[in-house]
Amino acid sequence: MTKELPSILNKRVVIEGVTPEIDSGRYPIKRVVGERVVVEADVFTDGHEALSCELRYRQHGANAWEAVPMQPLVNDRWHAEFTVTQLGSYTYTIQAWLDHFKLWAGYLVRRLEVGQDVSIELLIGAGLVDDTLSRITAHKDVANDAVSLADYAEKLRSDPETAIQAALSDELSALMLRNADKDGGITYDRELDVVVEPVRARFGAWYEFFPRSCWEKDCTHGTFKICEDRLPYIKELGFDVVYLPPIHPIGHTRRKGKNNNVVAQADDVGSPWAIGSELGGHKAINPDLGTLQDFTRFVQKAAKLGMQVALDIAFQCSPDHPYVKEHPEWFKMRPDNTIQYAENPPKKYEDIYPFDFDTTHWREMWAELLSIFEYWVGQGITIFRVDNPHTKALRFWQWLIASIKAQHPEVIFLAEAFTRPKVMYYLAKIGFSQSYNYFPWRNSAWELTEYFTELTKTDVKEFFRPNLWPNTPDILHESLQNGGRPAFMSRFVLASTMGASYGIYGPAYELCVNTPIAPGKEEYLDSEKYEIKHWDVGRADSLKTLITRVNKIRHDNPALQSNDNLRFYTTGNEHLLAYSKATNDLSNILLVVVNLDPEATQSGLIELPIEELGINPFAPYLVQDLLTGTYFEWSGSHNYVELNPHVLPAHVLLIRGTK
Amino acid sequence: MTKELPSILNKRVVIEGVTPEIDSGRYPIKRVVGERVVVEADVFTDGHEALSCELRYRQHGANAWEAVPMQPLVNDRWHAEFTVTQLGSYTYTIQAWLDHFKLWAGYLVRRLEVGQDVSIELLIGAGLVDDTLSRITAHKDVANDAVSLADYAEKLRSDPETAIQAALSDELSALMLRNADKDGGITYDRELDVVVEPVRARFGAWYEFFPRSCWEKDCTHGTFKICEDRLPYIKELGFDVVYLPPIHPIGHTRRKGKNNNVVAQADDVGSPWAIGSELGGHKAINPDLGTLQDFTRFVQKAAKLGMQVALDIAFQCSPDHPYVKEHPEWFKMRPDNTIQYAENPPKKYEDIYPFDFDTTHWREMWAELLSIFEYWVGQGITIFRVDNPHTKALRFWQWLIASIKAQHPEVIFLAEAFTRPKVMYYLAKIGFSQSYNYFPWRNSAWELTEYFTELTKTDVKEFFRPNLWPNTPDILHESLQNGGRPAFMSRFVLASTMGASYGIYGPAYELCVNTPIAPGKEEYLDSEKYEIKHWDVGRADSLKTLITRVNKIRHDNPALQSNDNLRFYTTGNEHLLAYSKATNDLSNILLVVVNLDPEATQSGLIELPIEELGINPFAPYLVQDLLTGTYFEWSGSHNYVELNPHVLPAHVLLIRGTK
Repeated sequence: MTKELPSILNKRVVIEGVTPEIDSGRYPIKRVVGERVVVEADVFTDGHEALSCELRYRQHGANAWEAVPMQPLVNDRWHAEFTVTQLGSYTYTIQAWLDHFKLWAGYLVRRLEVGQDVSIELLIGAGLVDDTLSRITAHKDVANDAVSLADYAEKLRSDPETAIQAALSDELSALMLRNADKDGGITYDRELDVVVEPVRARFGAWYEFFPRSCWEKDCTHGTFKICEDRLPYIKELGFDVVYLPPIHPIGHTRRKGKNNNVVAQADDVGSPWAIGSELGGHKAINPDLGTLQDFTRFVQKAAKLGMQVALDIAFQCSPDHPYVKEHPEWFKMRPDNTIQYAENPPKKYEDIYPFDFDTTHWREMWAELLSIFEYWVGQGITIFRVDNPHTKALRFWQWLIASIKAQHPEVIFLAEAFTRPKVMYYLAKIGFSQSYNYFPWRNSAWELTEYFTELTKTDVKEFFRPNLWPNTPDILHESLQNGGRPAFMSRFVLASTMGASYGIYGPAYELCVNTPIAPGKEEYLDSEKYEIKHWDVGRADSLKTLITRVNKIRHDNPALQSNDNLRFYTTGNEHLLAYSKATNDLSNILLVVVNLDPEATQSGLIELPIEELGINPFAPYLVQDLLTGTYFEWSGSHNYVELNPHVLPAHVLLIRGTK
Repeated sequence: MTKELPSILNKRVVIEGVTPEIDSGRYPIKRVVGERVVVEADVFTDGHEALSCELRYRQHGANAWEAVPMQPLVNDRWHAEFTVTQLGSYTYTIQAWLDHFKLWAGYLVRRLEVGQDVSIELLIGAGLVDDTLSRITAHKDVANDAVSLADYAEKLRSDPETAIQAALSDELSALMLRNADKDGGITYDRELDVVVEPVRARFGAWYEFFPRSCWEKDCTHGTFKICEDRLPYIKELGFDVVYLPPIHPIGHTRRKGKNNNVVAQADDVGSPWAIGSELGGHKAINPDLGTLQDFTRFVQKAAKLGMQVALDIAFQCSPDHPYVKEHPEWFKMRPDNTIQYAENPPKKYEDIYPFDFDTTHWREMWAELLSIFEYWVGQGITIFRVDNPHTKALRFWQWLIASIKAQHPEVIFLAEAFTRPKVMYYLAKIGFSQSYNYFPWRNSAWELTEYFTELTKTDVKEFFRPNLWPNTPDILHESLQNGGRPAFMSRFVLASTMGASYGIYGPAYELCVNTPIAPGKEEYLDSEKYEIKHWDVGRADSLKTLITRVNKIRHDNPALQSNDNLRFYTTGNEHLLAYSKATNDLSNILLVVVNLDPEATQSGLIELPIEELGINPFAPYLVQDLLTGTYFEWSGSHNYVELNPHVLPAHVLLIRGTK
């Protein structure tokens, strides 16, 4: 019976508890170019045996593994790291092996310390060197090592002094490690993946606006041409991504009027999310906005200013969409031969036909939907905001994103996944680069602390990158409705400093628009979704100055460009939230304090672990509020802060470093 | 390209976050016969779709799955459970499917509530019933269901009143659920295992003693025959398992003398762990103890009294072991042609040869070692205490335990895994039923709370069953050395009430032997490992009465027979540890309070969540100390406790139920 035992059974090293590893390797972790992957694992063997292990990694498609020796921490935990430098994907795993030579060398030292006779031990060591030699002599590329090892084997059999000196030499250790019988060891049974995306997938400020609305005096319907002139404003405010709601032809049938009225007037422009008309569908452009040429010129103009344009892809059709006629099999047919509109009974959304992901023609439908992304990538778009991905088959996105990224690893996908937590995280696991999240509804200090601890201090940080939006065309949270300008300021500072990625829906945000359609509702009154708005972005009470300042601070301070370095501090005041972000090397440390009460001045004692931050606890130190330029002299770990929301509800304090 | 898309991609349900699941299913969970397996999982789909799911399980070897419908908890979490009734192993997994009918029925209710016209909806429902009908008609075993479904399809197409009544009927829901297209759904991609062991694997009191020592006046060397007369004493004390150190012939070469002296005197009996002589090895019996017949008679006598005998298997050889001559290839040879003895430099253990698990003849060696267990199983032994399993190849145990259990699922393995945490847990994962653990070194209230929370409130509880030993022949902790009788009492109560399994090394324990070989050492002075001791178990100061009382309480109160029901409470006094154990149905609740200070009376207020325990917060209630029989009248959640260690350092309070 034992004759058939596979030799794996006799491998004496165990590798487990590998981190990062998402759902036992089902899903990749995410990184951006230049980031580190810190890998740890429990690696152990029986008894007193010694082992060595290494982290192995390679870019997707590469044949050879790169190897990094792992270092022991405590409690059988080992550690190593590597940096991802190329877009695409990497794989990593761990190899470990019994290291008889390391055990022997360690024991030899202990024997010598108590003066034991080691003559036999030295011969055992020579035997270990012999074994290595005879194993490697077949390989020409280690001929030099073989010569050196043969020399050491001889020395170990020489007079005691020579032998002991040889046994304890670092060179022999290095030679034996380099030529260890690694393949006689064990390799972790999973190869774990890293998806590597552009830095913009982690760090960026987004500005959403409706191109059809008017910012200019002589405008009746915005166009891409007109919008070109808005780009310098957006650039001046410091944004990195210009995000447009759907730009396609809008349906006529059952078009919604102003304020989502079920009856539209003749001059109502309809919702950009009711996609498709006789003029075309998801690959067409609403002619009221201009031509494809106008659009690409707009995109190029943005690029010249250092900004990227993000498109909104919403997979749903107006009843007038060409797909409805060409592919009725992609929609659900009712017994009365009408197509099933969207609904959430008793609510009906009759201007929208959802795709039927249960269709037996799903393969053809998926291919067509993929081609929509491919089309816009072909027009130079590399960032997509995906509308309600959670209402489409989830694995469809896994396939679609993988298909796009196989050719275009630079493409970034933002999921508008305002849904249940498990589904939101799942969409991130299966490929979305970023996600909307519960930030709009996390307003108190404890809610923000709890939620952002989950996002940044658990496994979630490995696959889920939050993009923080204090408002959207659909969400005007009551904190903004009731808190007015102070709330718009504090929520802006929170979004832009807690999140490496954040966005606002403007100009409604910088102009502090805060009237809901009805009390207790989150929708805007006279929502821009259903009508052309006229915005005066030059208004004196605009938040433009604050936004410009904060975006510059974000660009100047690398600490604000990551998420997982977020750390909260006690303030002794439930209205006062304090948190820091620091670079790994502590060369750049920012402390943000926000008064969450839009009505009253709040004060508290911020408690900092100053020694961990590299601050001398016995000397005063200067901190500078980057929002105002003011310096404060602080000392020790507890310092007083007072914030008047009607002046400025936040400090963004530079404790040390860049700026 | 999309033509080749596998249909799994189009499955719309996701199953993840399954618990229990150890290391992504690499290792089984453990249960004993009659225990429940509570399974939970995150199961979700896109959008507003409805799903149903079920837990499936089967005994190893069975063809058909048993199915239990899962119930939704909150946040996309689903729950179901099953009970394991047979020794051996079970497998479980989860199946989930989109439930269009459930969605339709739920929507119908909402439509009716607002008075929507549902005539088309009723036809859609009839279509769903038709679909089910046409799918199931091939199966004869659901002929009755088919008739009923056809009837419902007709009713749904009938007048509105009849149709609506049919649509909302529970019977139709049940029919549709029972005949759902489950195989059109998705099955979790892992089948997870449960190893089912005898109840004794979870619950038992162990008594270890050296059979060669003398408890009787006319004894010079104990024998199995003499030991038969000790069994009633052990039974009277209430123990379930009688555990003997190795019973094999003891080597002569380099035999250790008294107090581990490297030079033995002629009359020194040697350590039972120096196994093997010319009289035989691991399958032989030390003739000084008797014959195999004597041994089996002893085992049968114990069985008659309701106790099991556990043998100690220590895989190591004295230089005189027959294996050394017959299989020198199983040991490590040194360059001077001597066999490598055990060592931990600079310490040498020259009376012991370890097996060389690196030998190329490992398959033959493993087979022989397995045959040792098989031999003793053949002699009626079903419990083994395995000596230092962590110093043998770890995967060897995985194979060995699986091999034994394939034929004898009733066999229990206790690992003497006094080693690093990761290795200790790994040995449990790969098959050991129980394990020694850090209990001997966890003495303060916070240490005990922290450690037993880890053991009973994390995944560890699924695979690791602690066996709590306040002493062993190798471990006389300083708390016992310094604390004397009060410490022996409190540590006994802790072991026997925190652990469903516990053991003592007696008679040293009940006689409170507490002199170490040297200050700061944990070894006993004049250790029984190296000499024959004479014990007077009838001494008046023996802990016999306490032990007898506690073991009876353990047998009478099912709450004390599990581990994962342990719960700690605050006492306001760092010397006072309070914890409860309750049965799931709260019919049996015990509260244990232990004074950990062996010198002074300690008091505190025990804080209980009495409403969770089913106690009326507005009325006084009686609690009874089962150790003394005394009743106390308590009221509310805070009650005063005071314990004098010189009288009795513990309360074992029955709050409710059995006794």
